[in-house]
This record gives sequence, structure tokens and C-alpha cells, in this order.
Amino acid sequence: MASTLDELIEALRCLPGVGPKSAQRMAYHLLQRDRKGAVRLQRSIDEAITRLKPCSRCNNFSEHEVCDRCASPTRDPSQLCILEMPADLAVMEQSHAYKGLYYVLMGRISPLDGIGPRELRLDKLLERATDGLVEEVILATNFTNEGEATAHYVGEMLRARGLRVSRIARGVPVGGELEHTDIGTLAQALLERRGL
Amino acid sequence: MASTLDELIEALRCLPGVGPKSAQRMAYHLLQRDRKGAVRLQRSIDEAITRLKPCSRCNNFSEHEVCDRCASPTRDPSQLCILEMPADLAVMEQSHAYKGLYYVLMGRISPLDGIGPRELRLDKLLERATDGLVEEVILATNFTNEGEATAHYVGEMLRARGLRVSRIARGVPVGGELEHTDIGTLAQALLERRGL
Ligand SMILES: [Zn+2]
Ligand SMILES: [Zn+2]
Repeated sequence: MASTLDELIEALRCLPGVGPKSAQRMAYHLLQRDRKGAVRLQRSIDEAITRLKPCSRCNNFSEHEVCDRCASPTRDPSQLCILEMPADLAVMEQSHAYKGLYYVLMGRISPLDGIGPRELRLDKLLERATDGLVEEVILATNFTNEGEATAHYVGEMLRARGLRVSRIARGVPVGGELEHTDIGTLAQALLERRGL
Repeated sequence: MASTLDELIEALRCLPGVGPKSAQRMAYHLLQRDRKGAVRLQRSIDEAITRLKPCSRCNNFSEHEVCDRCASPTRDPSQLCILEMPADLAVMEQSHAYKGLYYVLMGRISPLDGIGPRELRLDKLLERATDGLVEEVILATNFTNEGEATAHYVGEMLRARGLRVSRIARGVPVGGELEHTDIGTLAQALLERRGL
């Protein structure tokens, strides 16, 4: 019946950037050409929403209340690197230039999108950063306008609490995103971070 | 853990037009901002792939072996209208200009995409059209190059079997798609169909 199909098309529209036409194309594709892919997608969504919750310490997606990285005794708890998204964390780890801990904002301050400090839940970051072990906060948000504004806001907030705050060096090209930066540049930018 | 997330991102790439970057954006969106939407999407896919199979008569998605429309005693079984996609059927029904039955190709002949008569499974159409009840076949594929080629091929195939074959009139703008045609134009095009 049309209703089951219509419901699928409507449900696909919850995906960002998917309008009515592409939702329809996606539904036909799944039903006609890629039922295996459809089964896999359905199970992956189920697994992901069931298993992944924000880590209580770093805010990244995690299968446990505290993720493996935050629980690791080999990471330096005196350094806290602040990032926008999980993909940024992945590329930072690949640079092998950092041994401290992370906090993932899961976004950035973006007034045009109605995302301010409250929507970013910076209170959680504040609590995390003031655990008594963190000595230095390294701001590694993107060098876009929004990333810079976020770094500025977060930096002021944490400096007011007596934390040492630094910003990774602008080795990352202006307007560029961490995720698209080669890891050598990123390692250099981390090395040349400057106090704020 | 990364693996559950990576699996979700990978699974999203089975959707047409979704590359690695947008799959990632979609996964974050589902997990962070729209878990309700994610649950709904997961269930809709499950329902759709479990319930919807091709109707054995019209080839459209159906929850039964023969869909309600094909089983209806009020439709004229002597007319068979051939369409590319389910969305075309929906708009044709909205025109209220047609009381016969349908056959949905679920595609079109498209050599560039490797879709020929065999991939379109035109043998199923041939069997359907030669049930002894169908007298006239109305070709209502799109007026795109591929739709026209499909109409030509299918028309020749069915005329060779002694069926009367017509093409809806080119009231539909050249290069246009049924789905984007206003229903008045569509009704007119159906009325002015010409024998092939
Ligand atoms: Zn963590
Ligand atoms: Zn049917």
C-alpha cells in the first residue's frame, strides 16, 4: 500500500539536506535496488541509537558511560583539548601529537542557527574542565568564523576560572577545517599553540 | 565506540547521492539532534522492506500479492496504462481521467545506466499485457529521451502481439516529467492519446 511507502519517504526527510524528491528517490532505491543495504541501514540506526550515548566526560559518542579514551590511565589528565566534532578528534589522534584528553562540543556557537552557549551546553564543559586535574585547555575548534568565535567564548569562560588556555596555531589554513587538514600541519599547529 | 558510528556512516552511503561527508553529517544529525527521527526512520525501513513486494500484476509496490487496485472490480481490465514509476501512477490517479489498470515499469530503458529490456524485466509486462483481457495499451512514460525510447520499444513489442497501442499526447511539455505536470494538462494528454 501507498501508506507504508509514504511513511518511509516521510521518515527519510528527517535526514539533513533531504527534500521530498530525494527522499522519494532514496525510498525507491532501497526497495527496488538495494534491499540488503536497507536492512543494513535499518540495523545500523537501531544499533547506533541504542548503544551510543554522550560520554559523561568528553561528550563524544560512546557505548559506555565513560568512554575508553577518557578511562585510559595512559592519557595526560592535565591537558584538555576542545574540539567541535568527533571527526576532528579522529584526525587529531591520527597526528599522534597529543596525549591529553578531549572534550567534544558536538557543534559550535552559531547565532544564525540559533546555537549559543546554552544550546552547546557549555555548562557540561565547564564542569568537566574544572575537575581539579585539568591545568591547560587547548582550543582546537576550526578556524572558520564560527569556530573562532567559539574558541574566543570558551577561552574567556575557562580563563575566568583560572585555567591556562591556549589555541592551536593557525597552521590550519584560514577558513579551513581540521578534518581536511593534513596531519603534519596539524601536528605543527598543536606544537605552536599560543597562550590566550 | 567508533565502530558502531562508523558502521552507521557506512550504511548511510547505500542511499543514492550520499557520499562520505554527507553520510557523516547525517549520522551526527540522527544521533545528536533527531533520535526520534532516527527511530522512525529505522522502523519505516523495516516495515517497508518487510511488507512491500512488487504486485504480481502491476509491478507497483504492494503489501499483497495482488494490490487493491489490480484486484478492484470497478477498473476497466481492457486498458493497461504503462508508467515509469509509482509517483507517476499517483499523479495519473489524481487526474481522474483514467479508469483502466496500470503497469509500473519501475524504471526506464537507459543504456548509459546499463538498463535494457532485460533489466527492466519487460517479460513480466509482456505476460501481463497478453492476459487476453487487455485490448489497449496506453504508453505514459515520460517525454524525456529515455522515456520516449522506452515507449517506442515497449510499443513495438506489444504491437507485435496484436495489441492496440497508444501514446498519451504530448501535452506534457517536451523534456518534462509526469510528476511535475499539472493534472489538467495530464487529463488532456490522456484524452488526446494517439494510436501508434
Ligand atoms: Zn570520553
Ligand atoms: Zn497491482
